[in-house]
Amino acid sequence: MNPVAFIEAKRDGHAHSREELETFLLAYLRGEIPDYQVSAWLMAVFWRGMTPQETTALTQVMADSGHRLDLSAYPHPVDKHSSGGVGDKTTLVVTPILAACGCTVAKMSGRGLAHTGGTIDKLESVPGWSGDLSEERFHELARAVGLVIAAQSKDLAPLDGKLYALRDVTATVDSLPLIASSIMSKKLAAGARTIVLDVKVGAGAFMKTLDDARRLAQTMIAIGKGAGRQVRAVLSSMERPLGHAVGHAVEVREAIATLRGEGAEDLRELALTLAAEVLEAEGKDPARAREALESGAALAKFREFLQAQGGDARVVEEPERLELAPEVWELKAPHDGAVAAVDALEVGLGVLALGGGRVKKGEAIDLGVGAWLAKKPGDRVRAGEVLARLHHRGKGLEEAAERLGRAYRLAAEAPNPPLILDVLRG
Amino acid sequence: MNPVAFIEAKRDGHAHSREELETFLLAYLRGEIPDYQVSAWLMAVFWRGMTPQETTALTQVMADSGHRLDLSAYPHPVDKHSSGGVGDKTTLVVTPILAACGCTVAKMSGRGLAHTGGTIDKLESVPGWSGDLSEERFHELARAVGLVIAAQSKDLAPLDGKLYALRDVTATVDSLPLIASSIMSKKLAAGARTIVLDVKVGAGAFMKTLDDARRLAQTMIAIGKGAGRQVRAVLSSMERPLGHAVGHAVEVREAIATLRGEGAEDLRELALTLAAEVLEAEGKDPARAREALESGAALAKFREFLQAQGGDARVVEEPERLELAPEVWELKAPHDGAVAAVDALEVGLGVLALGGGRVKKGEAIDLGVGAWLAKKPGDRVRAGEVLARLHHRGKGLEEAAERLGRAYRLAAEAPNPPLILDVLRG
Repeated sequence: MNPVAFIEAKRDGHAHSREELETFLLAYLRGEIPDYQVSAWLMAVFWRGMTPQETTALTQVMADSGHRLDLSAYPHPVDKHSSGGVGDKTTLVVTPILAACGCTVAKMSGRGLAHTGGTIDKLESVPGWSGDLSEERFHELARAVGLVIAAQSKDLAPLDGKLYALRDVTATVDSLPLIASSIMSKKLAAGARTIVLDVKVGAGAFMKTLDDARRLAQTMIAIGKGAGRQVRAVLSSMERPLGHAVGHAVEVREAIATLRGEGAEDLRELALTLAAEVLEAEGKDPARAREALESGAALAKFREFLQAQGGDARVVEEPERLELAPEVWELKAPHDGAVAAVDALEVGLGVLALGGGRVKKGEAIDLGVGAWLAKKPGDRVRAGEVLARLHHRGKGLEEAAERLGRAYRLAAEAPNPPLILDVLRG
Repeated sequence: MNPVAFIEAKRDGHAHSREELETFLLAYLRGEIPDYQVSAWLMAVFWRGMTPQETTALTQVMADSGHRLDLSAYPHPVDKHSSGGVGDKTTLVVTPILAACGCTVAKMSGRGLAHTGGTIDKLESVPGWSGDLSEERFHELARAVGLVIAAQSKDLAPLDGKLYALRDVTATVDSLPLIASSIMSKKLAAGARTIVLDVKVGAGAFMKTLDDARRLAQTMIAIGKGAGRQVRAVLSSMERPLGHAVGHAVEVREAIATLRGEGAEDLRELALTLAAEVLEAEGKDPARAREALESGAALAKFREFLQAQGGDARVVEEPERLELAPEVWELKAPHDGAVAAVDALEVGLGVLALGGGRVKKGEAIDLGVGAWLAKKPGDRVRAGEVLARLHHRGKGLEEAAERLGRAYRLAAEAPNPPLILDVLRG
């Protein structure tokens, strides 16, 4: 392997074979090829792209670079991935629905960074709950409960972790084959047979346009097919935060309300759509998703899941046990009108300013602060009516309030924009 | 300075300001920005290119990154750069001509790498000669002799040295703005007022086509203009080695023969063209170049130069003091015909195999081995006539002989191809 010739090949627009990718990248993982050669190669990939065959090969090399979870012994092993978003608590609603329908959701999940929240952080607002599980315990809960969520292990697709860290500091994140292979390598290593992708589209999301999002989804579906997995993708609008809550404890409260049949319509709709796609792919009746929600079976499963991972399950009946920051600041409508837009990025950065997010990996975050968006796009408001509330402890309030004010745009008339933009089934 | 934003700007096709380039690259030189960010940026430059303004700014930042020589006190300070080639002993002929015409040639020169020779190595075949001079001695000789050649100092344009080493291992060498700025940064730092560029064109050269060579030359001329220097470029064919000799001692022998008015026509023609361009740019009569050669003034200057740097000047009268390897192998014409081509790269690699070149920096080389190309493109030959000779010590003969055989191509008829393809004067 001549690393310079390998870089040169991509630089000149040629495609690598799976063997070449494997040789170069596993040598990198072992520390035998330096960062500076890999970053030059990553920029060449950013420029020249990758063929579908290359993207699939790259994904498989990354998925095979460490430990793989074997979920094949469990009934209907399924997984869900979200491309990340502000106020995205969908996992907390979808996974208990699926488990209540007889699927096994044995899932690795991440922590939040910058303005996007992480499922593990959110669940940690439940007193006692922990995502740090031994592999043995992880499998025990998969079998006994059918729903287990653990913090992302470094042993899964370690090559992806090393490459992602390098992309992050060399302006090579925003490349479709690199994004798709990074996501799918972790999903392949995590062992599910059916994977549903929640792809967010919009100014505040990774994918700015519907076309880009479709291309990303199609690429990931093709990678899944190449690896013998069923992948479906739901494209949803990120032109506004999902549901009313943005934060940690406040989002878990909202997820519980949704599992009770209350809560915001958009969150409920997206969760049911994602769940129905999974059920259909697994040969089950997609209508069972709604039944599990309406019958309370999903809520019961969520209770069981919290308890199994050490959490105080009384939060399900007494959501006030999910502690919010004590002070409340309110944003009021300056005049009559309708909400034309709520900028999700501004809201996310506002909550970050309150202490509800981390700028660097490993930082502690305040799980009690957050925002409650009482009014959403399409809602009519009167002058002086509360648009949104911030739960805070004083810190960063000025910035957060300013950002929240900027996030809301009022107009004379405003339609309720559609949430679900497309569903791709490969 | 956010290095990721800087890389992103080039990645997205934007131009950097001089201040941005300076901040990023001087931080790199100080070790505050890691190689992996700079190599990603270099690949983005390879992809997106640079505006003329950026290329000039990059050159100036590199030229200013270390020590600068001040030659302004000397009459007509001039310099010559060759883009490198097999058997290129032009510097040994041009510089004494220029010094004999009243110019000051106070020059830094490199060592050879791979199949290309270096002027310093060649001169070291003269017993006692040394290019390791203190700066004080360098200036003394510039003043007293008007011709001094020293080994390239690491203090001159150190940023270029660091960037070049990184480009070499990241497939980012072959970029026009990076090549042009690298060459010109060293020339600007070396202080000459007029610089003549000997740009080689052809399959074996850095620039494969006349168009590419013209673009490179125009870029370097523009950089020179931006820095207040006069730059001219002579584009010459590298479809064949220059002169008859390829090696070290054997090339110095040929240079001396040329200074005596003997030797190959192509070498003589190129040397006189380069010298005449410099003289004209400096306001002198270009015809003086030929006079200096024919009168013996250039040869006398070369003798003075060798002696001043510790060399045995008797080599000028007794070239056999330049010791050649004792064994000789001959390549003979397999049939009657004419020499259609001599592949310079094959000849260079052949001499490398004999030990007359280095693969890694710092390796010792055998100054006595080499090739003598008795027949050149356009020459008619008879079956059994000697085409070329190798001077060797046994080592690597098999490979060298095979390469030499491959280098020669005979045909029924063969024109003598033109040597000088174009002259650019800005």
